[in-house]
Amino acid sequence: MTDDHQAQLEAFRESIDNIDASLVFMLAERFKITQKVGFYKREHNLPPADKLREEHQIERLRALAKSANLDPEFSEKFLHFIIREVIQHHERIREKGSLDKDVT
Amino acid sequence: MTDDHQAQLEAFRESIDNIDASLVFMLAERFKITQKVGFYKREHNLPPADKLREEHQIERLRALAKSANLDPEFSEKFLHFIIREVIQHHERIREKGSLDKDVT
Repeated sequence: MTDDHQAQLEAFRESIDNIDASLVFMLAERFKITQKVGFYKREHNLPPADKLREEHQIERLRALAKSANLDPEFSEKFLHFIIREVIQHHERIREKGSLDKDVT
Repeated sequence: MTDDHQAQLEAFRESIDNIDASLVFMLAERFKITQKVGFYKREHNLPPADKLREEHQIERLRALAKSANLDPEFSEKFLHFIIREVIQHHERIREKGSLDKDVT
């Protein structure tokens, strides 16, 4: 690999690193909100999952992905990946709740 | 579910939807760059994977996740999820290249 190649790859990688930092901070914010949702649902005995809501999210993200020239299949896989993690968080909240009812 | 519960969940969901839109557009931009990287590497016969770069990315994202109070394990899983997708894109670029050398 020449110095030119190295410099060009470095330039690409700087942009990727900036985007990755934004993604991580955005995800951190998203989990802060879904954590609040988890506590709220537990406090008010609301059902943890909402299939209709999930279907709307998928449709919406697929449309946004298309408009941004991103593979809609990928946006759906991405949402499922995030939702799986949220469900695990919610399960931890519920387990914690069953051990210690004073947590909320 | 009462109207109050519904209204509170709606408020949470609006924020989640805003963040998801940002994530999708950010990911679209990330894939635009990794696509350029894929073409560049193919054009200059550079190796598709770089293990050392990947290790640096993981360490950096774990540190950023910690600073944002996000589970570092999740940030690592997330990066692997994205990288798997990028590798699939790069493979498609390579396959396309072998079928039609005039693509780039």
